[in-house]
Amino acid sequence: MEELDTTWLLIDTYTENCGNNKSTMDPALINFKVLYVLTQLCGLTMIVLVGTWIGQHYGGLGGSSNPKLEFNWHPLFMTIGFIYLYGNSILVYRGFRTTRKKTLKLTHAGIHMAAFILTVIALKTVFDSHNLADPPIPNMYSLHSWLGLSAVIIFGLQYVAGFTAFLVPGMRENYKIALMPLHIYFGLFGFVLAIASAVMGLTEKAIFSLSNYSTLPAAGVLANIIGVLYVIFGALVVYLATEPSYKRKPLPEDTALLASNGAE
Amino acid sequence: MEELDTTWLLIDTYTENCGNNKSTMDPALINFKVLYVLTQLCGLTMIVLVGTWIGQHYGGLGGSSNPKLEFNWHPLFMTIGFIYLYGNSILVYRGFRTTRKKTLKLTHAGIHMAAFILTVIALKTVFDSHNLADPPIPNMYSLHSWLGLSAVIIFGLQYVAGFTAFLVPGMRENYKIALMPLHIYFGLFGFVLAIASAVMGLTEKAIFSLSNYSTLPAAGVLANIIGVLYVIFGALVVYLATEPSYKRKPLPEDTALLASNGAE
Repeated sequence: MEELDTTWLLIDTYTENCGNNKSTMDPALINFKVLYVLTQLCGLTMIVLVGTWIGQHYGGLGGSSNPKLEFNWHPLFMTIGFIYLYGNSILVYRGFRTTRKKTLKLTHAGIHMAAFILTVIALKTVFDSHNLADPPIPNMYSLHSWLGLSAVIIFGLQYVAGFTAFLVPGMRENYKIALMPLHIYFGLFGFVLAIASAVMGLTEKAIFSLSNYSTLPAAGVLANIIGVLYVIFGALVVYLATEPSYKRKPLPEDTALLASNGAE
Repeated sequence: MEELDTTWLLIDTYTENCGNNKSTMDPALINFKVLYVLTQLCGLTMIVLVGTWIGQHYGGLGGSSNPKLEFNWHPLFMTIGFIYLYGNSILVYRGFRTTRKKTLKLTHAGIHMAAFILTVIALKTVFDSHNLADPPIPNMYSLHSWLGLSAVIIFGLQYVAGFTAFLVPGMRENYKIALMPLHIYFGLFGFVLAIASAVMGLTEKAIFSLSNYSTLPAAGVLANIIGVLYVIFGALVVYLATEPSYKRKPLPEDTALLASNGAE
């Protein structure tokens, strides 16, 4: 298994020079921690507000016997899975920089899997809420649905490609190194597309459900605030994930593992 | 004026090591050219389709005597200014890599100014179309308006900050070097936020104007296709602007200018 860590080490070494000098590392990490905490607060507030929004204004959650309430799982699970967990899974390498690389890779794959499961349930509930409505509502006609499903498909393809390239042994080192920038690019692209789809979803829900949206009733203001939080959360995640000085440096353990030639 | 070029040279040198090796430069630039042409085709198609959309389905353009037609300037000028020109202004350093840095900086500021003027007209027409309607439509209530105006404000602040730091002489070199990553980050953030706002705008227009949107009439399909093109255009611009191997290398002229101590 240690050959996998070699890849990461090579990639680390490859991009290491793009970061700040070592003399400026500490202030950069203090900034990182402040922004990381802010990101978590923003993400958790976003989830609480979506819960409040559907609880206070849309009757809470329900099963397939009540399609209108079943719909409410859609924004809740998309927010938890396809925005909050997706973002946090991206940040795992930066937030837990003292953890061994292999553990981080498994955590990244694990959180992404949890995000994917919630996303699939969120898709199932929106299709149910359309199909079980009386009369049924057509599926997949809106730009929200086109872009949202595209984001889910990109996420799924990324998962398969990432798992095959970086977790299953056997991929050649130079392929891994070539794939990594694409994995990062499409990972962030899918994440940003998920957020763009989410703000379109809020727009749809506000217009369809609030005939007085233009007078900014409480449900409308809350939808708008949730949308602003999605954008701030997304902007923070992308910044923390792309700022070179926040990049995790290889640990001595990674090097030791690389140098050793023996046991797993 | 040549001290300004010094900054760019320093920044170039600072980030140069993040790119591919010189031996792989040529294939990278061939890829760049293909993707750059694709970006332009995507951008121009997007503009033509918005023109077709408002011309075929919404009665074309009009003045303040007809608020419904005056509104149509909004999507057209936002698409040309706040998406196509904004994106192209970002790409100017990559697309015209053999041009002198100072010319590129002036071009960047010039295209951004054109983008800003079109954006302000596009804002004026949407406010007019609300205020002059009978009865008037409230302004600034939707998430689209909140995020869209935020994108315009970010763009405006970026313009002032970028102009002061990088075009007006006098800013200290180390400030310029410290500001550049923020200028790039907020430039791309404003651009992506503009696109997120645009797909929300399409969603609003489709729902408000098409009672049969769910049966996907021609105007609805066209709106969705325009939205997909916005996203592809945005994804291409961000990729071309952030891929390290596409970064412009300093020219001999830049160095000569730096070395010389004399005439402008």
